[in-house]
Amino acid sequence: MDPWIAVDWGTSSFRAYLITNDKVLDQIHSKDGMKFVQHDNFEITFVKLIEKWLVTNKKILILASGMLGSRQGWAEASYQKAPCNLEKLKYMSPLIKDNRFELKIYSGVSQSNPPDVMRGEETQVSGFFSDNTNFAGSICLPGTHSKWINAKQSRIENFKTYMTGELFEVISQNTVLIHSLNCKEIDKIEFIKSVDLIVEKPEIFSGLLFQLRADDLLNKQMSIISRSRLSGYLLGIELADSIKYWNNKDVVIIGDETLIELYGDALMNKVSSLRQFKSEEMVLKGLTNFKKFL
Amino acid sequence: MDPWIAVDWGTSSFRAYLITNDKVLDQIHSKDGMKFVQHDNFEITFVKLIEKWLVTNKKILILASGMLGSRQGWAEASYQKAPCNLEKLKYMSPLIKDNRFELKIYSGVSQSNPPDVMRGEETQVSGFFSDNTNFAGSICLPGTHSKWINAKQSRIENFKTYMTGELFEVISQNTVLIHSLNCKEIDKIEFIKSVDLIVEKPEIFSGLLFQLRADDLLNKQMSIISRSRLSGYLLGIELADSIKYWNNKDVVIIGDETLIELYGDALMNKVSSLRQFKSEEMVLKGLTNFKKFL
Repeated sequence: MDPWIAVDWGTSSFRAYLITNDKVLDQIHSKDGMKFVQHDNFEITFVKLIEKWLVTNKKILILASGMLGSRQGWAEASYQKAPCNLEKLKYMSPLIKDNRFELKIYSGVSQSNPPDVMRGEETQVSGFFSDNTNFAGSICLPGTHSKWINAKQSRIENFKTYMTGELFEVISQNTVLIHSLNCKEIDKIEFIKSVDLIVEKPEIFSGLLFQLRADDLLNKQMSIISRSRLSGYLLGIELADSIKYWNNKDVVIIGDETLIELYGDALMNKVSSLRQFKSEEMVLKGLTNFKKFL
Repeated sequence: MDPWIAVDWGTSSFRAYLITNDKVLDQIHSKDGMKFVQHDNFEITFVKLIEKWLVTNKKILILASGMLGSRQGWAEASYQKAPCNLEKLKYMSPLIKDNRFELKIYSGVSQSNPPDVMRGEETQVSGFFSDNTNFAGSICLPGTHSKWINAKQSRIENFKTYMTGELFEVISQNTVLIHSLNCKEIDKIEFIKSVDLIVEKPEIFSGLLFQLRADDLLNKQMSIISRSRLSGYLLGIELADSIKYWNNKDVVIIGDETLIELYGDALMNKVSSLRQFKSEEMVLKGLTNFKKFL
């Protein structure tokens, strides 16, 4: 079978895979995220990154998803409305000057009520379904903008986005709490206790934030405890709202190693079943899956 | 009576008043907040700011409160523990090289359980009590770190701090929501509706934040609506926890003009009574009050 290329071009990183017969022959990981590329330079940058795989006598097929399809990206691949079947996800093909490849950028998914959008996560969900055709349950994709998705047999029924990762970033780095969180580790027991506290009593969320600072000023509280609590409070306020997605449900978590572990610890005793998968693998499987349906 | 000087030196601004017989003869407002002054330069900067009021033949008394008394400030005036009587608030006198003035820096107030601190707000509360000796109820000081204080006859019984102002700043300026909040106005009806929604259902707080962005992307929602909602959600999650301070209580709000109006609109129909005062006036009254108890 002809080789093809799978591309995941996100805001802060670039990954590409050269594939034949479902085998990855070569791969490229780079930090050339979309946000570092000027609008007129997408094709030039892209070609530079993958040029070693291009040949002059044959147009290679490239399937891509992620932020390169956003309005601020290379070319807008508009959203497909949920509920939708990922086997029928649309793509768009931007005009390409280089005649050594053909590019298909897959759409994101939107929802009208309540308004919500995703771009890139749908590919990971499709990747999960490639090995779990009959799954019906919830898929959680933790990250800067965490997603909870109600999915069934390759369909996205509805979903909800939480800014949990981004909130953690700005609260820990841009507020007075920065002085009390100078540590990278998490104390799991303190973390889970904090999650459960807020799931139980979401109304006390806001009052606990400054308390982290005061506890440091007055009691020299350890920063690992403060950091674990802040993480826990923020995941807690996410879980307080997303309860219909996880409470006694079969839950799949797809994300990077640290986050699937953290979310797993918090959800362990709250769900019917729990499985964890890595984002990177699911993106590749997802694009491979999309190719099958072409 | 001998003239004296009242000083409010905060993180981002400086105010000083020259006073005789409870009358302000002259005043200085400057943007030389503590954060712009290097640690060794506090006295030099201070003298430059008020030098026109200093005379060589007589030591003038200066009473000060605010962040100049913090650990990172000019000299630490350690916290007095609540419950405490503001008529007996302690002060510290740093060593001064200049012999034309004597400086007393008033303490902040701390609380052990739950841990909490204030610095500067206690002076405003004392200012309020100077004209309302027998008040018993709640005093709210909205701002970067909003305070709710249970106070009675010049005493601070207990209090709680909310990072509401700071959360609004970092969420509106450092997250993806920046693209959807490009406006300064507030739609009051939308704001109050959003406050009430979260007071009623604090568990949905987190799920509504990204929705502001999606509503803009999909429906081109007006930024005045998004901004009013974000303000409302953040005040709502503060009020959800601070309910024991305002529900059917006599409430006094002390703050800048914009914030006392906003908090007033949100609290109007939820409290027994509501009065609003300006911070600047309360600080001056507070320091004047402290002078009486010397």
